[in-house]
Amino acid sequence: MTQTFAVRMVVDLPPDMDPDARTELLGREKAYAQGWMRSGQWKSIWRCAGEYANLSIFEVEGNAQLHEILSGLPLFPYMTMQVTPLCKHPSDIN
Amino acid sequence: MTQTFAVRMVVDLPPDMDPDARTELLGREKAYAQGWMRSGQWKSIWRCAGEYANLSIFEVEGNAQLHEILSGLPLFPYMTMQVTPLCKHPSDIN
Amino acid sequence: MTQTFAVRMVVDLPPDMDPDARTELLGREKAYAQGWMRSGQWKSIWRCAGEYANLSIFEVEGNAQLHEILSGLPLFPYMTMQVTPLCKHPSDIN
Amino acid sequence: MTQTFAVRMVVDLPPDMDPDARTELLGREKAYAQGWMRSGQWKSIWRCAGEYANLSIFEVEGNAQLHEILSGLPLFPYMTMQVTPLCKHPSDIN
Amino acid sequence: MTQTFAVRMVVDLPPDMDPDARTELLGREKAYAQGWMRSGQWKSIWRCAGEYANLSIFEVEGNAQLHEILSGLPLFPYMTMQVTPLCKHPSDIN
Amino acid sequence: MTQTFAVRMVVDLPPDMDPDARTELLGREKAYAQGWMRSGQWKSIWRCAGEYANLSIFEVEGNAQLHEILSGLPLFPYMTMQVTPLCKHPSDIN
Amino acid sequence: MTQTFAVRMVVDLPPDMDPDARTELLGREKAYAQGWMRSGQWKSIWRCAGEYANLSIFEVEGNAQLHEILSGLPLFPYMTMQVTPLCKHPSDIN
Amino acid sequence: MTQTFAVRMVVDLPPDMDPDARTELLGREKAYAQGWMRSGQWKSIWRCAGEYANLSIFEVEGNAQLHEILSGLPLFPYMTMQVTPLCKHPSDIN
Amino acid sequence: MTQTFAVRMVVDLPPDMDPDARTELLGREKAYAQGWMRSGQWKSIWRCAGEYANLSIFEVEGNAQLHEILSGLPLFPYMTMQVTPLCKHPSDIN
Amino acid sequence: MTQTFAVRMVVDLPPDMDPDARTELLGREKAYAQGWMRSGQWKSIWRCAGEYANLSIFEVEGNAQLHEILSGLPLFPYMTMQVTPLCKHPSDIN
Repeated sequence: MTQTFAVRMVVDLPPDMDPDARTELLGREKAYAQGWMRSGQWKSIWRCAGEYANLSIFEVEGNAQLHEILSGLPLFPYMTMQVTPLCKHPSDIN
Repeated sequence: MTQTFAVRMVVDLPPDMDPDARTELLGREKAYAQGWMRSGQWKSIWRCAGEYANLSIFEVEGNAQLHEILSGLPLFPYMTMQVTPLCKHPSDIN
Repeated sequence: MTQTFAVRMVVDLPPDMDPDARTELLGREKAYAQGWMRSGQWKSIWRCAGEYANLSIFEVEGNAQLHEILSGLPLFPYMTMQVTPLCKHPSDIN
Repeated sequence: MTQTFAVRMVVDLPPDMDPDARTELLGREKAYAQGWMRSGQWKSIWRCAGEYANLSIFEVEGNAQLHEILSGLPLFPYMTMQVTPLCKHPSDIN
Repeated sequence: MTQTFAVRMVVDLPPDMDPDARTELLGREKAYAQGWMRSGQWKSIWRCAGEYANLSIFEVEGNAQLHEILSGLPLFPYMTMQVTPLCKHPSDIN
Repeated sequence: MTQTFAVRMVVDLPPDMDPDARTELLGREKAYAQGWMRSGQWKSIWRCAGEYANLSIFEVEGNAQLHEILSGLPLFPYMTMQVTPLCKHPSDIN
Repeated sequence: MTQTFAVRMVVDLPPDMDPDARTELLGREKAYAQGWMRSGQWKSIWRCAGEYANLSIFEVEGNAQLHEILSGLPLFPYMTMQVTPLCKHPSDIN
Repeated sequence: MTQTFAVRMVVDLPPDMDPDARTELLGREKAYAQGWMRSGQWKSIWRCAGEYANLSIFEVEGNAQLHEILSGLPLFPYMTMQVTPLCKHPSDIN
Repeated sequence: MTQTFAVRMVVDLPPDMDPDARTELLGREKAYAQGWMRSGQWKSIWRCAGEYANLSIFEVEGNAQLHEILSGLPLFPYMTMQVTPLCKHPSDIN
Repeated sequence: MTQTFAVRMVVDLPPDMDPDARTELLGREKAYAQGWMRSGQWKSIWRCAGEYANLSIFEVEGNAQLHEILSGLPLFPYMTMQVTPLCKHPSDIN
């Protein structure tokens, strides 16, 4: 049985970061994130319109795996996280 | 083309509400919500664990339809809403 | 494998509540809470000194069981909850 | 059919920025913003009196175009955004 | 010369208000608001999607007329106001 | 007819600023502020006791002049502003 | 030597208050406030445009007299107060 | 060895409370508080000027006694508490 | 007659400050603070347990002297201040 | 008799810290923390899932020892602390 979480991630990169370092960092971020999407734990990701932020849905083994995934993000040192544990809603028809 | 929104809804029902009125109200809420789920605009709903609150994903024609759905909720007068417009994230593999 | 959560619960009872109804409600609350303590899911509870609030540690099957326990509290309609999912810390010696 | 949004943008430029770099950046910002004003998506912009901030009204195809416009701002890395989706008000006489 | 203001108004009506009193109150609110729209001071009003709230733009003689208009709203005792004085933005092309 | 505003200004100067640059900056700030005091728009200024902050009252032509005055402050890039439009109170005996 | 204070007072009267009781209460409030204005402690009062709130300047003997004046207001039980002690600003030309 | 705490208590009594009940409640509050002042645990109490609030210093055996004292206050159901544990400061000359 | 104030001071020193400069700064801070303690204006100081912060009680001539003392602190540029004017509480037995 | 406290610690390390200095700092942090765990004052520590933060339970002699432990943390200059004094809850079955 997996556990569902919503995570809102806000990114705050220094504007004067070296462009090459930034490109390399964002490339690693994308590859890392897509790895967890392909293996099925990172179910959804949306851009929050107008912000350098995303809302994501995770289905993981539990709290420890959620932390493993999020703390391993190359952008983790630049992010503020808001984590909400979710479960089935009685009105859900799925 | 549809527009995606995340909505966090927090419910604050008076604890001394008449039990029958409450049951009737919650029944109407469920039926109303499931109507929009079946017609495809209310894509997902999760209970926020430990809270009388939910996180939902909508795919609607636009801002006006989102407002029509949310303001029509029988529980709307008892709810606090937090609306976040979403769009495709560049790392999304779907 | 169980999941660990910290929950801070703040109680806001109306000061003019009928004393008998209040006594009966608090009695049911205590019995309900102690049931989950005895069955092992509600590991710890402390009073926050000077406040009508507690800090509790739960070890549960997952998010759904946490919600089942918390939403079943007789005082739930009078409570504000703050839920934090926890996992093992690398410095923990236990 | 277009979607309407209000966006409050607060700018936080480092006071010790190189004056030439600052002038060049602000010049690009103005040209970029006026491009979207001329093409009709950026309907209104006002300075918030006494603050380095503006309130703007956008009419765009949807959430994705709003994000394209805002995230493309040369000042975007220095801005905090507050986005509000809008729709027609029943008292509007227009 | 007129002064421009943005006002965000959040309405909090008691859910158990008498339906007739509510209908009558909202009717007076609409008539009052449209009077100021027709006379030109209340330039724009939008519903904030998903909320019982609006964002409005006023062009008035000054602070006193703004207060006269807002404090005269039949819904004023039920509203929370956020007032932002505005002026021309240097990037505005109008 | 003039418009009245209260403005709370909080100053946040970097502690390691060059002492001469700081002295020169504060000298320009004082001269600039006293210019607007002498010409009558900056009616009052008080130090908030214990804080690097002031509360000021302005009487200006309107929102645009208020912005002109405040954004021209040499310390403006180091300030956080809180602007409140004011008007005559019915209990005022003056 | 007198002490200067700024006080922001926000009033929250129940919308369903008996109209006569309300008129009587507001009449007493006005008389009480004007008494302290005439005796010189309540130097200034402004309405905050668009809000049921005021900003006032007091010159009193000290903290105790400020409390005596404010806590004696007939509207005190309905008010939220924000008190700021003030002193002379080095840029003040008066 | 005693433990020191600062507690800020904000009181929110319903304005329409029965005057006799209020007088009786405040009388009991005063007697209860002065009992703990005389026995030495409630070292200091000050009114926060302009607010229905106090700041108090306690010297107690520990967290449990602090809670016993505060939760026993007749006004406790109407109070919001902010508790700060204190200890000796290295600059203290006493 | 003196005036009483509570001040909460939170210190935020850059972690990479030169150790000698830091030692010298903290030495000056201690000497300065103890000077006002010895002359009787700085009545009490406590460390807030677990934080780089203190709570202090001042008895001063008025707001201006409070500002003179606080703004003269060598650590003032690194501090955030929260000032509360106090007066005698009716339950105080001293 | 020991006193119980919950402490939430949020760490904010500069992302561009020298990797060796960081490794050395974290090594000292772990050793220091485990010292207090072994001597029995630091009873529990959990990672807050998805955040660079922990929740800990301390059983100490009193406020002074709590401050000694927390302020001695090698990461203390990079941490924000939230301290809650706890005591026995009447529903606790242990």
